[in-house]
Amino acid sequence: MHHTAELIAVGTEILLGNITNTDAQMLSEGLSALGIDVLYHTVVGDNPARLREALTVARQRVDVIITTGGLGPTYDDLTKQTICEVFGRKNVLHEDIAAWLRARFAAQNQVMTDNNLAQACLPEGATVFPNANGTAPGCAFCEGGVHVLMLPGPPHECLGMFRSGAVPYLRALSEDVIVSHTLRLYGKGESAVEAILRDRIAAMTNPSVAPYARTDECMLRLTAKANSEAAAEAMLAPVIADVMRAVGDWVYGVDVENLESVCFALLKEKGLTLAAAESCTGGLIAKRITDLPGASSVFCGGVVSYTNAVKSGVLGVDRALLEQFGAVSEPVARAMAEGVRRITGADLGVSVTGVAGPGTDERGNPVGTVFIGLATPDGTLCRAFAFGKRSRARIRGHAANSAFDLVRRFLQGKPLSV
Amino acid sequence: MHHTAELIAVGTEILLGNITNTDAQMLSEGLSALGIDVLYHTVVGDNPARLREALTVARQRVDVIITTGGLGPTYDDLTKQTICEVFGRKNVLHEDIAAWLRARFAAQNQVMTDNNLAQACLPEGATVFPNANGTAPGCAFCEGGVHVLMLPGPPHECLGMFRSGAVPYLRALSEDVIVSHTLRLYGKGESAVEAILRDRIAAMTNPSVAPYARTDECMLRLTAKANSEAAAEAMLAPVIADVMRAVGDWVYGVDVENLESVCFALLKEKGLTLAAAESCTGGLIAKRITDLPGASSVFCGGVVSYTNAVKSGVLGVDRALLEQFGAVSEPVARAMAEGVRRITGADLGVSVTGVAGPGTDERGNPVGTVFIGLATPDGTLCRAFAFGKRSRARIRGHAANSAFDLVRRFLQGKPLSV
Repeated sequence: MHHTAELIAVGTEILLGNITNTDAQMLSEGLSALGIDVLYHTVVGDNPARLREALTVARQRVDVIITTGGLGPTYDDLTKQTICEVFGRKNVLHEDIAAWLRARFAAQNQVMTDNNLAQACLPEGATVFPNANGTAPGCAFCEGGVHVLMLPGPPHECLGMFRSGAVPYLRALSEDVIVSHTLRLYGKGESAVEAILRDRIAAMTNPSVAPYARTDECMLRLTAKANSEAAAEAMLAPVIADVMRAVGDWVYGVDVENLESVCFALLKEKGLTLAAAESCTGGLIAKRITDLPGASSVFCGGVVSYTNAVKSGVLGVDRALLEQFGAVSEPVARAMAEGVRRITGADLGVSVTGVAGPGTDERGNPVGTVFIGLATPDGTLCRAFAFGKRSRARIRGHAANSAFDLVRRFLQGKPLSV
Repeated sequence: MHHTAELIAVGTEILLGNITNTDAQMLSEGLSALGIDVLYHTVVGDNPARLREALTVARQRVDVIITTGGLGPTYDDLTKQTICEVFGRKNVLHEDIAAWLRARFAAQNQVMTDNNLAQACLPEGATVFPNANGTAPGCAFCEGGVHVLMLPGPPHECLGMFRSGAVPYLRALSEDVIVSHTLRLYGKGESAVEAILRDRIAAMTNPSVAPYARTDECMLRLTAKANSEAAAEAMLAPVIADVMRAVGDWVYGVDVENLESVCFALLKEKGLTLAAAESCTGGLIAKRITDLPGASSVFCGGVVSYTNAVKSGVLGVDRALLEQFGAVSEPVARAMAEGVRRITGADLGVSVTGVAGPGTDERGNPVGTVFIGLATPDGTLCRAFAFGKRSRARIRGHAANSAFDLVRRFLQGKPLSV
């Protein structure tokens, strides 16, 4: 049976614009990977009458309703009480949750107030979803053919409970198993990838192939439905192999987070270290790789050389090169990569120099001109890019992606020209 | 008259989770500053039947409907045609928009295809909102007491048109003028600020004061309603002065973007330059200040010293200090700040060394321990922070904010201890 879903977020802070409803994006992505069509997102404030109305509308148009928010101790009554009213269930105390809450407070030497106990009340007969990242549990039940799932609002609690509680619950609704794999690509846009794969995309329904645009990159989702996970994987394997033959040069990973995590894993696997010399990216490359816990095992650090004085004084770039070719040039990119490799002692030095805009540089290089250098034990290479009239943020994003992609291609022994 | 609003986003890519509905956050914030209550957010796909239903529901429960998306040449018919159907208006060609589009394409030496001309069709009698950042214009009309505004989906087009077209249209609906100012605070949480201001918040209705939590900081919005802008400003001035007396130490700016933009403006005003030596923030400080166009006039660059070898080899931190006190210590933070100031030639050097987690460091410093140094022409100072058991991203965010805030306080001659 095919399922359709509506997401209902409960939170006045979303309607005031204080926070963005990122839960909706994250749940939509997860539901889409499960083969469930999300037809509506709705947001209401902390207001029982409007939530009641939204639930009444939703149960008539979808068969899976997922609420986010309104489960914590302060607003506790709102989401659960209103759902119980609309679906005719009792909100009852779950003794095991109450015991878990008491133990949790005791372990932190805190007194548990009565409003906290309300978190242990859930609709009668509901499947409880424990909360690994907070105190409010979630739950799910089915009434009149409509599945109602309640998840907490804070994004990390919501995501954790979606994965640990909601996904198994939703998978069990179907005899079919849906398996998805995501190929992440850099260096070719969504429309170019779609053009290459158009015939395959049109010809296939199960498995299916769908391209998606992402900020500064794109991805392909391959999905198969079968009566077992093994059967679905067996259907996907030849399709992945076929797609890799067509666009594999641009695929930087399957089911991975981002380019920097792929570089991190490759560096770790090979026991190599990296350093970065950044001009127009201004620290973005270093920031992105150090977002990852444990980055210090592969990343030595780097230099943000925003002025020529830092390029020469700290990185040791020859002043003559800067004068002759300008800061945004291949010789300077090479010298920056070699310089940062030398002063940090890293195995690989990557460099970026370019014009992020909004204006051209003093030599008239157009906005989007970027040179990326890579110094290795076997020599130095450099690539030139023209990222065109994008915004400053997008040019910086592409420059950082191109730097990581060059490192990735080098470490994987892939072609170094895109 | 008090107005209530519903935002309806049109876009299958939002329901698939490919993009987050950031337009809703941005519009909600803007409408809240205009004194308009946003009661619902709704998202539907590129599906006329579901959009029709959403519009039919919305016109019964609010008097301002703002749609985002579905105005471009490919989906052109969807939003405008459906709105025209529901509200009984004709979708007619606006000759002036068609002429503007033809000129725009001609200027770029591109052929304008017929589907582009559909962008020049808008509901009869609508107020046209020109699009400064794209080709699809927006518009607004009023039917049966309900105002319908159509804005484009891409966030920079949406924001631009909201400010230039929608805000003046909505302001004109009311004889009252609403003026808001936003005080940005760092170093005190929303609940602590609320506790200090509780009596004032409770006692005031016009002007009103409302605190909001933001990622790693908080803000206060002060709003006044009057019959002229001057009258509203006159009502706000004493309230701002009063609030500044109570929490002014933590206010880093009024109607400003963020801490880095305040530092940028102060450095520029004083003709000073900054450099950063970053350990646990790993380039975040450099990345944030270089997000701002023109950063090179105040920011020399910096060093990401993720290893002790880089701290000593590049920044010149004495190895004896590293061995005696460890990398996460006040003496090392001071030496890093002085080192980066010396090697870059900047007027001010700021440094961060700390434990971003998830694990403690090799000396057992707890997660969240952070030292921030500031080297100035008059000497060096250092502050210690304990950001507690936050996530790695939040500790890095707080460390960067604290570094910018220390620079800000130094440049403003404010107390240097929080």
